[in-house]
Amino acid sequence: MAKDFSSREENYSQWYNELVVKADLAENSAVRGCMVIKPYGYAIWEKMQAALDKMFKDTGHSNAYFPLFIPKSFFSREADHVEGFAKECAVVTHYRLKKDPNGNGIVVDDEAKLEEELIVRPTSETIIWDTYKNWIQSYRDLPVLINQWANVVRWEMRTRLFLRTAEFLWQEGHTAHATEQEAIEETIQMMNVYAEFAENWLAMPVLKGVKSPNERFAGALDTYCIEALMQDGKALQAGTSHFLGQNFAKAFGVQYLNKENKLTYVWATSWGVSTRLIGALIMTHSDDHGLVLPPKLAPIQVVIIPIYKKEEQLIQISEKIEPIIHKLREKGIAVKYDNRDTYKPGWKFNEYEFKGVPIRLAIGPRDLENGTVEIARRDTLEKEIIPIEGITENIEYLLAEIQKNLFDKALAFRTQNTFKADTWEEFKDMLENKKGFILAHWDGTAETEQKIKEETKATIRLIPFDGDEEGQCIYSGKPSKKRVVFALSY
Amino acid sequence: MAKDFSSREENYSQWYNELVVKADLAENSAVRGCMVIKPYGYAIWEKMQAALDKMFKDTGHSNAYFPLFIPKSFFSREADHVEGFAKECAVVTHYRLKKDPNGNGIVVDDEAKLEEELIVRPTSETIIWDTYKNWIQSYRDLPVLINQWANVVRWEMRTRLFLRTAEFLWQEGHTAHATEQEAIEETIQMMNVYAEFAENWLAMPVLKGVKSPNERFAGALDTYCIEALMQDGKALQAGTSHFLGQNFAKAFGVQYLNKENKLTYVWATSWGVSTRLIGALIMTHSDDHGLVLPPKLAPIQVVIIPIYKKEEQLIQISEKIEPIIHKLREKGIAVKYDNRDTYKPGWKFNEYEFKGVPIRLAIGPRDLENGTVEIARRDTLEKEIIPIEGITENIEYLLAEIQKNLFDKALAFRTQNTFKADTWEEFKDMLENKKGFILAHWDGTAETEQKIKEETKATIRLIPFDGDEEGQCIYSGKPSKKRVVFALSY
Repeated sequence: MAKDFSSREENYSQWYNELVVKADLAENSAVRGCMVIKPYGYAIWEKMQAALDKMFKDTGHSNAYFPLFIPKSFFSREADHVEGFAKECAVVTHYRLKKDPNGNGIVVDDEAKLEEELIVRPTSETIIWDTYKNWIQSYRDLPVLINQWANVVRWEMRTRLFLRTAEFLWQEGHTAHATEQEAIEETIQMMNVYAEFAENWLAMPVLKGVKSPNERFAGALDTYCIEALMQDGKALQAGTSHFLGQNFAKAFGVQYLNKENKLTYVWATSWGVSTRLIGALIMTHSDDHGLVLPPKLAPIQVVIIPIYKKEEQLIQISEKIEPIIHKLREKGIAVKYDNRDTYKPGWKFNEYEFKGVPIRLAIGPRDLENGTVEIARRDTLEKEIIPIEGITENIEYLLAEIQKNLFDKALAFRTQNTFKADTWEEFKDMLENKKGFILAHWDGTAETEQKIKEETKATIRLIPFDGDEEGQCIYSGKPSKKRVVFALSY
Repeated sequence: MAKDFSSREENYSQWYNELVVKADLAENSAVRGCMVIKPYGYAIWEKMQAALDKMFKDTGHSNAYFPLFIPKSFFSREADHVEGFAKECAVVTHYRLKKDPNGNGIVVDDEAKLEEELIVRPTSETIIWDTYKNWIQSYRDLPVLINQWANVVRWEMRTRLFLRTAEFLWQEGHTAHATEQEAIEETIQMMNVYAEFAENWLAMPVLKGVKSPNERFAGALDTYCIEALMQDGKALQAGTSHFLGQNFAKAFGVQYLNKENKLTYVWATSWGVSTRLIGALIMTHSDDHGLVLPPKLAPIQVVIIPIYKKEEQLIQISEKIEPIIHKLREKGIAVKYDNRDTYKPGWKFNEYEFKGVPIRLAIGPRDLENGTVEIARRDTLEKEIIPIEGITENIEYLLAEIQKNLFDKALAFRTQNTFKADTWEEFKDMLENKKGFILAHWDGTAETEQKIKEETKATIRLIPFDGDEEGQCIYSGKPSKKRVVFALSY
């Protein structure tokens, strides 16, 4: 399977595209820019959803569902917001088809034109804040802590599976608070939830910080984010949490009576992660042999492949394996026993290696005699013959070990690819020859940021919370209070 | 809370609408026909999803995700299908907004017109079968057993929360099989899964059968269904499972090489249930005091309300209650301890009664002295003082008892409201004065079915699998092999 597959060295972008398709994660659909998420890819998303959903609920949030469509007029209420999204909106204008009177199949019925066009949601702040207006009257109605799992549409011109698609799946949290302080705490809390999820589940180390004004969400006062470094040295924004101030409350007239019986505008946050995380997952761990999955998100954690020539051998192997499968499942480990006779063991080895299954067991007649099994781990590609006695404990331990190893490896990669640049020449040289995260001083102005972007394509990925080493802006030479993180990015 | 609430007797339809809104399940949004599903309503949907999803996976299905949009030309490929859905399609024609050059806010950018219009999916057969074309080449690729959780849009003119909305949430299974036999078995299996879910989880008895040709899904050869009887004597279609034959395989050119190396068209099924089930749930069990929920789907199964005057009493009650809450949660029981001081106990009693929480515990200082607690069950409204000793076992038993009681009550209602009509006069009289399910003979023709519908609004809800009592059609007098089920319906 892997032989007609590009290496990262040869062509990183092609490597990614081929991997997504050949590992059965997703494919392009007949609809421009929209993807089909195949069962194996969707199973990863389901695992992500389950883990995140629990974290959201543990921090007091509930799920709800708001309309797919947003009236055009709602969209225009918050000026920055509409400015940010107008250029990529799918617009519904009619609500009926009819037979073409000239016999040319089916056409849009011009008589069924909507009075006001509807936008397919690119994000739901406007429709949600229009709804909150009716839910929030008193301080007793606050906070409102709601999350939505949904599809959204942003009409991107250049799309790539998982990383940038016209339609994608995501969750969007939308909360309403009595005070500014509480809203900011919520924003930071959710950034931390995302960071914890990225590191503990995706085994993907992330930097935390705030965006520069240029990179903020359209309508936010502050955007907190987590950023990860991909194997080609480009950064990927993996999650954002926005402090929206009172912008949407004012645009939609959402006020509450506080304990002093005074009408006050509500404070807002919103936060989201999407199926883009699957792209991040792939680019953090996978190699030239295909996908590598952290055990906690792998749809199949252990695959068992019988090696046999005669039917009776298969029966003997299956008898030996059954209680092991049972014990593994009792421990909550997702195990697949692939005893299909339509494929040969070698084909299966390639298949599961390419699909990133963390642990592979192979067992043949000689193993039965010796009481052994061959165990192979996907992350290091190491193989070993081990006793079948105590195998379930061994596997449990190894899954945790692989999860940790993947994180450590990714962290080492990031450390090796994080640089400090002190001059403009050094900065440009690093971007060209090293890539990675570049810590450099910046004078804090949008103009400088814009010029750096124009000249190098690099953007400020985030402004870290810590760091107080003063210096001079690499571009303007003006004073700077701390280094910020630059990178080329997805 | 319940005092400004209509009774079923007064105005059934208003009772339903008010209940949905006042129990915080859902509300109409600013977008015509689209609902907002509020956290309490959505929590019921999440419980439904979890139970169904497990049943789908246990029967070998995987989840995947297909595009929201369907190119107009795909839609026209299967003639009956487009005929069935053309009149209710939301159509995307443009992909950009811009500032009005005349300064009138934001307008659709005419230069961003799509070459081919996109339909917001009303159901996904066409886009999915276009995808399956690339997935299925050989008998080894079959069966394909996929389910999708998604939102769909059908532009209904008259909408009602949960029962009929322009956008709704659902699952749609789409399977591909090598043989006709296997596809029919799948269709029947999924109807049985739905029936089991309806009866065991919603506590809602259902009839199983097939639809008459008039009532079939657009593009199906046979539609299997489950039908439930609501408290106003009208039927509600609660789930459908379609045998699609080779219609979609032929429309999209999906063929496979069978074991004899011969190209053969694939056989298809599709099946779905939606948020409409929440409407069915409400109308099956609820009463003039508000919502009644079967324990298996109740977001809160037990609510505990402390009765106290002094802060120290609350502390004592809380100390007594903590270990009980802990034990209940260990048993997987969803319990809420409402110790808010912003609302009085009486207000809380009304609130949870209206929201259908199956069991309510109240505990005050006197209970502490006596080692007792007041327990109230929502289904019968009975209250009792019981010892706090052994309370968790008592609650566990009672939840099962309530689940069973609700089913039994609904079954008894259906039995009382199922009638046999042998003449046209009797039939019309029953529809007018009794409603319910009416078993009557029908001559099997679409003409007769249509005329009965025109004259009485009643439709054939299903043709049962059993029954071989011969007779004469109530309308035409022609011979009939068995009775079918007529009813007015949602």
